[in-house]
Amino acid sequence: MSTHILRIDCPDRAVLIHAITGVLLRHGLNIIANSEFVDPETRRFFMRTEFAGEVDGEALTSELTASLPEGATIRLARAGNRDIVVMVTREPHCPGELFMRHAFNEMGATIRAVISNHDTLEPLARQFGIPFHHVSHEGRTRSAHETALLDVLESYQPEYIVLAKYMRILSPEFVSRYPERIVNIHHSFLPAFIGANPYRQAFERGVKMIGATAHFVTDYLDEGPIIAQGIIPVDHTHTAAEMAHAGRDVEKIVLARALRLVFEERVFLLGARTVIL
Amino acid sequence: MSTHILRIDCPDRAVLIHAITGVLLRHGLNIIANSEFVDPETRRFFMRTEFAGEVDGEALTSELTASLPEGATIRLARAGNRDIVVMVTREPHCPGELFMRHAFNEMGATIRAVISNHDTLEPLARQFGIPFHHVSHEGRTRSAHETALLDVLESYQPEYIVLAKYMRILSPEFVSRYPERIVNIHHSFLPAFIGANPYRQAFERGVKMIGATAHFVTDYLDEGPIIAQGIIPVDHTHTAAEMAHAGRDVEKIVLARALRLVFEERVFLLGARTVIL
Amino acid sequence: MSTHILRIDCPDRAVLIHAITGVLLRHGLNIIANSEFVDPETRRFFMRTEFAGEVDGEALTSELTASLPEGATIRLARAGNRDIVVMVTREPHCPGELFMRHAFNEMGATIRAVISNHDTLEPLARQFGIPFHHVSHEGRTRSAHETALLDVLESYQPEYIVLAKYMRILSPEFVSRYPERIVNIHHSFLPAFIGANPYRQAFERGVKMIGATAHFVTDYLDEGPIIAQGIIPVDHTHTAAEMAHAGRDVEKIVLARALRLVFEERVFLLGARTVIL
Amino acid sequence: MSTHILRIDCPDRAVLIHAITGVLLRHGLNIIANSEFVDPETRRFFMRTEFAGEVDGEALTSELTASLPEGATIRLARAGNRDIVVMVTREPHCPGELFMRHAFNEMGATIRAVISNHDTLEPLARQFGIPFHHVSHEGRTRSAHETALLDVLESYQPEYIVLAKYMRILSPEFVSRYPERIVNIHHSFLPAFIGANPYRQAFERGVKMIGATAHFVTDYLDEGPIIAQGIIPVDHTHTAAEMAHAGRDVEKIVLARALRLVFEERVFLLGARTVIL
Repeated sequence: MSTHILRIDCPDRAVLIHAITGVLLRHGLNIIANSEFVDPETRRFFMRTEFAGEVDGEALTSELTASLPEGATIRLARAGNRDIVVMVTREPHCPGELFMRHAFNEMGATIRAVISNHDTLEPLARQFGIPFHHVSHEGRTRSAHETALLDVLESYQPEYIVLAKYMRILSPEFVSRYPERIVNIHHSFLPAFIGANPYRQAFERGVKMIGATAHFVTDYLDEGPIIAQGIIPVDHTHTAAEMAHAGRDVEKIVLARALRLVFEERVFLLGARTVIL
Repeated sequence: MSTHILRIDCPDRAVLIHAITGVLLRHGLNIIANSEFVDPETRRFFMRTEFAGEVDGEALTSELTASLPEGATIRLARAGNRDIVVMVTREPHCPGELFMRHAFNEMGATIRAVISNHDTLEPLARQFGIPFHHVSHEGRTRSAHETALLDVLESYQPEYIVLAKYMRILSPEFVSRYPERIVNIHHSFLPAFIGANPYRQAFERGVKMIGATAHFVTDYLDEGPIIAQGIIPVDHTHTAAEMAHAGRDVEKIVLARALRLVFEERVFLLGARTVIL
Repeated sequence: MSTHILRIDCPDRAVLIHAITGVLLRHGLNIIANSEFVDPETRRFFMRTEFAGEVDGEALTSELTASLPEGATIRLARAGNRDIVVMVTREPHCPGELFMRHAFNEMGATIRAVISNHDTLEPLARQFGIPFHHVSHEGRTRSAHETALLDVLESYQPEYIVLAKYMRILSPEFVSRYPERIVNIHHSFLPAFIGANPYRQAFERGVKMIGATAHFVTDYLDEGPIIAQGIIPVDHTHTAAEMAHAGRDVEKIVLARALRLVFEERVFLLGARTVIL
Repeated sequence: MSTHILRIDCPDRAVLIHAITGVLLRHGLNIIANSEFVDPETRRFFMRTEFAGEVDGEALTSELTASLPEGATIRLARAGNRDIVVMVTREPHCPGELFMRHAFNEMGATIRAVISNHDTLEPLARQFGIPFHHVSHEGRTRSAHETALLDVLESYQPEYIVLAKYMRILSPEFVSRYPERIVNIHHSFLPAFIGANPYRQAFERGVKMIGATAHFVTDYLDEGPIIAQGIIPVDHTHTAAEMAHAGRDVEKIVLARALRLVFEERVFLLGARTVIL
């Protein structure tokens, strides 16, 4: 029997949980796991329900819509592996982590392809049997480059796009094609050290911990809603280069952790924040 | 309007959330926060609901009982400060942490009294205006000592008893008087280093992290269900005494964190484990 | 036999450790612990040596000066408790932590006095038998207020001043009176969330971890060299107020940890960074 | 100019650092980094010195021996990549982590070969161009199996052997061939959950954190000196299988971190403990 995940967010009402579970029961669906959250400031209600059973998605959605207040978002997804495309530049540790998890079926996703503006990681992708597309930005305007990227991307119809140390900024036009569907790993504990070379910035500021932040990509650089963060301690013996080296471990683990949450459809947006159920 | 916390655990059924929220709605109660968990091995269902409104506890409980499967546990508690008694021996850091939080209304509990088998901490308790009872174990059998302790304890009718580095073992008879109501802090990362002098044991084993464990007290020493754990890194420069010193910070913070969970009625037992909602 | 701590920093030379240990040996001093560090970028050498024996400080310093390159800093301090003054405003958790450690001789320092621009914490200080000075800023210019603070401070001749959630900015003139001798705790993971209300800022940015930073105070707000940092995880269920509440635990522990390093004379400045030996 | 690492441990004397640095100076060697530690219980002195220059190893060692007390251990190693062999069984995450670091020159070692009692990971090793030897234990006594393993091992003359989730116990005879040269990763926070299936044990005990321990292998199962440990939080929602899954991330990172320390010749034994300089 198939399993699905229902995600609802809407203005809070006293009756919501009772009403939603009632609809699921009437559809003969069996709730496996359920979580809710009401944001105390905005009074917005969030609910994630995993259920088993034969589902008529259209009928379920329409009955739920009728039971919920105006402004409700209802999303239904099958449980299981997502189809994704990974975008990279030259650094191997984050892509390598994802390829390895993919190879041993531990990521909750199938990497359909890798796209890069450099060909550095082509051998690594090929070694794992993953199609690699080199879409160089050289001699192209940003707009022309993004058009070329989109051509490749769209041929795969990915559910999510993962920027695994993709080091070029994507335009708002590009990003708006994939709302809540692009995940980036930034190599700092945001909002500290926005922008280029955060490890050098961290070194010069003399911090005693460095971090990494996985976030959805929105229009503004490094300002997307945060999904997961991690840190590791450093000290005066670390040069900027050694901070970068140490940081790789936390980057790849934080990215993998965030992706797991995203692929299990646990992450909701609440303004600039995320709710994770 | 008053706030209450309803805790239910029972064998899982498809209809439970819908049924329980239905009862609450019929009683005109407004759900503020709700969490559920179904243990996949035992198929036991757990639910914690915070709600506001005028509640007729007896009617609510009886209607819930009628809606739930055999073997359900239903507990209803008002939200707010708990009445507790703290038992100590000679070490000040855990009691001091609790006294300070109590003084500034940050613990979710009112410390009604402190009981100790030594008078070492009497000045500290008095300084915070908390009644202190010195119930010496000297010249008394364990049974006679526990009877004397119980005499004092029962005069306060505490909802919870906190062993804040109380260094004597309590008998099963004593413990059985307060099921799920005695919380202890053990100065190791259980189940490593059960028993006496865990820091010495940790030092000799050459561990690179030391920990603390807050747990409910059951019949068996240091084997009660774990509520919270914490660790801090140590290295070869720490002597056993310095490990103990470093460990105090994690002990007191872990104890305070566990108590917060307990006092907010978030902790359920599931065999030897806890479910925290 | 008394124990001292020698701290040296100077341009690196191949012969330094050999030369310095030679001087100590000739003075009949017994090295207990020794640490060195050479910064690879600036080629500056740092050394901290704990030694036992009767020391003629002037002769030792002068012989060391003769053995070291131009630009050497030589500092000699007795080991043991420091005399400190604690400055506070209204929040009790950091001062309370220090008072408790002081009371049980766990801080490596004697709190000679507490100074505050409010009288809120006077009862807490008095309860621990620590002199409390209320130096209100109301109706005074900043300059007049600081003069009044300095009058009290100087009467105690503190070796270090600890800002334990002292919520007013000190002028560069004030700070320059106590170079490398004022330690502050900032309630964020610097350099994220500089300035006022960092927990509100953190909440709005949707971070998944909050932190605290202990640093030396220099002329520029929240930009002093970092001594210690710590973090705790938070999630969407934390309101800004709950983040602040959770943050208190990490603030007080990070402050205490930083002070231990400072009081043991382990912290050296290297530009905007610290070297901790 | 080549770089070497000198490791000395011996009974403590006042003059040691001065004497040792004197020998290095006389040999025209330039100290890059230096660390010492004296264990307060055993009064044993440990020193690790990185130096640059043309070294006559025999002359240096003999002059050092003459300057040091009886019972000194002096070890000299070139800095740089170690030659290692990795032993695995069927789990890919730890070997995969090492292969990836090896491929991108981030491990401080060259993996000369992989040996396994199963052929499961042969494709992964081959994909990275690393020789793979399948030495099955089936139909062989333990002794015969170990002889076959040793035949392969000795053909590579490895400086270190890494057990990257090698799931068979090695005999004391085998282990004694490689003293302080076999590193294992154990999937628990030792000494909790010694032996088989630690995640199941951890699950049943209801711990709130799971860990991993990298240690030298000695005669006694899971009792070798600990090099590094790490933990991650878990809760009641983790099944035993999910704990195992979550634990993989900490296992592989802890193993990689321990290996870095070992390959940089930073780890000394002190009875059952390690000193890490």
